[in-house]
Amino acid sequence: MNFYDIIQKRQSDRQYSNQPVEREKLNICLEAGRLAPSASNSQPWTFIVVDEPELKDKVARCTFGPLKSFNKFVPQAPVIVVIVMEKAKLTAEIGGRIKNKEYALIDIGIAAEHICLQAAEMGIGSCMLGWFNEKEVKKLLKVPEKKSIPLLITLGYPPKNYRHRDKIRKGKEEVVRYNSY
Amino acid sequence: MNFYDIIQKRQSDRQYSNQPVEREKLNICLEAGRLAPSASNSQPWTFIVVDEPELKDKVARCTFGPLKSFNKFVPQAPVIVVIVMEKAKLTAEIGGRIKNKEYALIDIGIAAEHICLQAAEMGIGSCMLGWFNEKEVKKLLKVPEKKSIPLLITLGYPPKNYRHRDKIRKGKEEVVRYNSY
Repeated sequence: MNFYDIIQKRQSDRQYSNQPVEREKLNICLEAGRLAPSASNSQPWTFIVVDEPELKDKVARCTFGPLKSFNKFVPQAPVIVVIVMEKAKLTAEIGGRIKNKEYALIDIGIAAEHICLQAAEMGIGSCMLGWFNEKEVKKLLKVPEKKSIPLLITLGYPPKNYRHRDKIRKGKEEVVRYNSY
Repeated sequence: MNFYDIIQKRQSDRQYSNQPVEREKLNICLEAGRLAPSASNSQPWTFIVVDEPELKDKVARCTFGPLKSFNKFVPQAPVIVVIVMEKAKLTAEIGGRIKNKEYALIDIGIAAEHICLQAAEMGIGSCMLGWFNEKEVKKLLKVPEKKSIPLLITLGYPPKNYRHRDKIRKGKEEVVRYNSY
């Protein structure tokens, strides 16, 4: 599958079948995340794979939102990958402070997308989740309180008839400029 | 090329030949960025393509750092893509504020990596740059002062003999945990 097809295939999948994700394929996704680039090669991330059913269900419930239907699909996913943000290297840390930029968040986005794109290529569905009770997730997974968890990712096989949606995006003319804003 | 090969091929390329990047291939890279996912589908980005030689050279010089050799390769790149961060959608904005997360930075990382991976697949080299004189870049490209520019990306063909480096990353056992931090 070429890159264009992979990015077309990746979508936020909010329905999962009972089919478990093979450990081997899961490892390929994590490997894609591990190999992601980062500022000063800091790799400011730890990936916690949550697949122990009872624990996973508890983590899933941490994503439920204020609206009734919000994230109610999450418990269907057989795997949740929790991304913990780690300290950047001193060079990236200092550079980020001088330039007032949190490079580590950019890096986390890159690594998370590597995981999702690799999953898509293998027919595994994914959804990044930014809304969850972070304090509770930390407690469940014994993550030190001072660390931050920017994202969770659900992984699983969508049902056979799950719909592939066309991407709705701003037009090219709105997003791309040449030599001037 | 499959996804694993693409992520292996992408590296920070810090040397470029005279070969220009074809406008058609450049557009394919930008399209990959445009199609990137984002929190609440906010797409909080504008891509400014800088390829007018004199202007590009001025932008390139904004990346020079305190150390003598730092980013001195940048003027070699025939194209610099400047990513401007735009306001997120209200839902992402509110969610981010409640959860104290800057989703837009995560989104920018994802879009930037889409551009770089798409370039890699086509044999075009890239390098993300987080260190630059943002104020000066804004002035050169007429970007409103209140907007932020998290990243620049150089694009160009590396010289024929340019070395492909093995990736140096933390070990899997350091990065991946199961069901507990």
